[in-house]
Amino acid sequence: MREIADLSNAASVLQWDHEVYLPAAGGADRARQVATLSGIIFEKQTAEPFISLLKNLSATESLTWEQKTNVAVTRRHISRKQKLDKNFVEQLSNATSNGYEAWISARKSNDFSVFAPWLEKIVALKKEEAERTGSWDHPYDALLDEFEPGMKTSTLEKLFGEIKPGLESLIKRIEKAPQTDDSFMHGFFEKEKQWNSGLDVLKLIGFDFSSGRQDISAHPFTISLGSKDIRLTTRINEENFHEMLWSCFHEGGHGLYEQGLDKDSCGLPKAEAASLGIHESQSRLWENHIGRGRPFWNYYYPILQKTFPEQFENVSADDFYRAINKVKPSLIRTNADELTYHFHVIIRFEIEKELIAGKLSVNEVPQRWNSLCRQYLGIDVPDDASGVLQDIHWSHGSFGYFPTYSLGSFYAAQFYQKAKNDIPDLEAMMSKGDSKPLLDWLRSKIHSQGKLYNSEDLCRKVTSESLNIKYFQEYAEKKYEAIYKL
Amino acid sequence: MREIADLSNAASVLQWDHEVYLPAAGGADRARQVATLSGIIFEKQTAEPFISLLKNLSATESLTWEQKTNVAVTRRHISRKQKLDKNFVEQLSNATSNGYEAWISARKSNDFSVFAPWLEKIVALKKEEAERTGSWDHPYDALLDEFEPGMKTSTLEKLFGEIKPGLESLIKRIEKAPQTDDSFMHGFFEKEKQWNSGLDVLKLIGFDFSSGRQDISAHPFTISLGSKDIRLTTRINEENFHEMLWSCFHEGGHGLYEQGLDKDSCGLPKAEAASLGIHESQSRLWENHIGRGRPFWNYYYPILQKTFPEQFENVSADDFYRAINKVKPSLIRTNADELTYHFHVIIRFEIEKELIAGKLSVNEVPQRWNSLCRQYLGIDVPDDASGVLQDIHWSHGSFGYFPTYSLGSFYAAQFYQKAKNDIPDLEAMMSKGDSKPLLDWLRSKIHSQGKLYNSEDLCRKVTSESLNIKYFQEYAEKKYEAIYKL
Repeated sequence: MREIADLSNAASVLQWDHEVYLPAAGGADRARQVATLSGIIFEKQTAEPFISLLKNLSATESLTWEQKTNVAVTRRHISRKQKLDKNFVEQLSNATSNGYEAWISARKSNDFSVFAPWLEKIVALKKEEAERTGSWDHPYDALLDEFEPGMKTSTLEKLFGEIKPGLESLIKRIEKAPQTDDSFMHGFFEKEKQWNSGLDVLKLIGFDFSSGRQDISAHPFTISLGSKDIRLTTRINEENFHEMLWSCFHEGGHGLYEQGLDKDSCGLPKAEAASLGIHESQSRLWENHIGRGRPFWNYYYPILQKTFPEQFENVSADDFYRAINKVKPSLIRTNADELTYHFHVIIRFEIEKELIAGKLSVNEVPQRWNSLCRQYLGIDVPDDASGVLQDIHWSHGSFGYFPTYSLGSFYAAQFYQKAKNDIPDLEAMMSKGDSKPLLDWLRSKIHSQGKLYNSEDLCRKVTSESLNIKYFQEYAEKKYEAIYKL
Repeated sequence: MREIADLSNAASVLQWDHEVYLPAAGGADRARQVATLSGIIFEKQTAEPFISLLKNLSATESLTWEQKTNVAVTRRHISRKQKLDKNFVEQLSNATSNGYEAWISARKSNDFSVFAPWLEKIVALKKEEAERTGSWDHPYDALLDEFEPGMKTSTLEKLFGEIKPGLESLIKRIEKAPQTDDSFMHGFFEKEKQWNSGLDVLKLIGFDFSSGRQDISAHPFTISLGSKDIRLTTRINEENFHEMLWSCFHEGGHGLYEQGLDKDSCGLPKAEAASLGIHESQSRLWENHIGRGRPFWNYYYPILQKTFPEQFENVSADDFYRAINKVKPSLIRTNADELTYHFHVIIRFEIEKELIAGKLSVNEVPQRWNSLCRQYLGIDVPDDASGVLQDIHWSHGSFGYFPTYSLGSFYAAQFYQKAKNDIPDLEAMMSKGDSKPLLDWLRSKIHSQGKLYNSEDLCRKVTSESLNIKYFQEYAEKKYEAIYKL
């Protein structure tokens, strides 16, 4: 399993480099290299001696609970792989590498049709994957299961159904209140100063640069290239201070999770994230509860004012806090506020379900996208680049991924409330720029547990109850009622 | 073979990243990842079905000459591999990855003993490799053969024996002549401006940035990560303009060779370099014959003067030309002029021979180094960092590599003379900043031939005679007699 981890990490290095440093003409070779590696990883994961070994281990009484769990989680993962074959894995790898290249040019040329043929291939392969991996209530369940083991389409429909009315009414109340001014976030923010402020943020939340680094890419992401090599990326828009700032908190949160996994268990489930929903809970917690919270800025806003005196000299910390929490439906998911954000997720959830169920064809996607944007965000989409082409995920074949973003927010609210209960001076320490108590709590309660528990069990272990969206609802209402004086 | 090429390229991406971007704590994981990949590559290269296939192909009459040669060269390469085993390959990979880390800290702390235990392991493994790969006149022949197929220790002893007296006497005559002033090369040269000038140089010599890029590393190198992804690195010393400048010409020359290999033959010998000596001939040709030649600067010196007005405003192009050709024995090989350079190579050649023959132990190496430096360069070595620890090669396990640097210079002189004969206006075009005629000539005569010919055959094919050091001798005498008015 360590050998498989080595090869997976090697493939991650190739993917990281693809998105960060690869020369323009290098894409085709790189696609083939990753496909070759993926094929070998697949062969090793499904090789007969390995399968037998796992089977024998699972019948071995003398193992500890942790060892048994490592075996059981691995068997579950491998049994899904066994239903595919090497040819399928290489095809998918090739389609997504080339699909990524096509998505890049499609977005650049604002032309969905450049991406469409590859998206078609990818959707066909994901449908095939759903068919081959089991009998599911809904074929989309098969894809959700990869990112959020056990999650069902019907559960998500229920969750989103419950959260929608409250969110819609809160957003409506906010729309009627006096609007926040955040114009000072859209001046000119010099690239290098932004970069340095981003590094400050990462250091303050506890990201360890001896075991990681940050680079620039078109779409920010976090990837683990080894147990002590966690890479983050950000992007910098000199005319909008939001982009770099939130990507640093967000990817930094992912990075802290990866850096907190058990380094000695490399290759085993204990050293893996519980699920993407839990992963996202960590990025959301740092992004929304810390980065968009008030205490952190007691410490860091005066420093930021010194870095950007022209922009912030005459802006109070409270005005800055209101600006970074401005609620306004907008086109781009990654720039959305934490309330309207969930409608972006719902749009993608609807489209993915329909695509995978064969109820929507690829060429109908842009139109469906635009009509859902109108319905949920009240916005007309001006072009594909800022509409259906804005996200990287489909080019990666990541169907079933978006819902984990919302799950992450809901888990984050529940975890953060519990952390505040457990650490009474958490926010007082944060006001002094000290994030250690919170990080230590997350390390011990969540990071170090790896994948020994699934999301549900972990949530119960940490908070003594199942995922409960009331924590998110209460948090959102309390916060935004105060900000907008509702 | 394409699959093997994919995996080798993947390993190269990991190595490139190791030297360019890897966080400090990531070394151990990365070492294991590269070792795992090396093991898999080795298994594939020596797998029975592949060996049988090659054997059958070599008995197939209907192949073209090119196909037959691809098969023959591959069989020769694989037959060496077959004498090793996967365990040996993984051990060597691990020892060199860790050895590289140890070399980095040893050089930083100026302490050979930090590197010594790893060097010991590496030397032991290279001795084992020599023993296992055949019966050689001298065990060092086994290691030379990997980089320069067919090259013998005795041939090199003869070559160096022939070149030494003439070089020594030329250097002595230069020492007695009035010395060149190159103090203006050691002012302050801002990092970003140097970086941009380096990119200018690379573009001028024809490096294609859509199929490659340049980054920064401790020790400049060139590596191919795919047929259209050639990576160069440089280093920048703000107090010494030489370092970045020569690394760009040198690595750029390597990069042009890699970019000129046949892209459609990926994985086959036709798409590989003929040998390291031929590879080095390309870097030396661009570095010494173009970069240290007079015509190039007719075009580029006025531009350089505008970039660095303070440093060069009052320096004529001729003075600049003399400065970049200043001959003076010095400590660091990579900073050496093109005459004393060969004594740096001879020092390493002597030590490597003795280490591999078991006539010198690793802990005696620093002393032997210092005494050879005294003997050949007339210099006392002040410390290990600027002495025995200056080069990366031994940490990589690259024994037998250094001699190819001198071979490269000798081949370069012979090729360049032939190119000038074939292209009468070569230097006139270079004076206008046009390197295309030369690059086209190299592409057609050398790059596109790949490894279908060994160095000797290629040299005869291109210049109608075997390697003849008189070309280098005549070039050196003519050039330096003019510069120093001897």
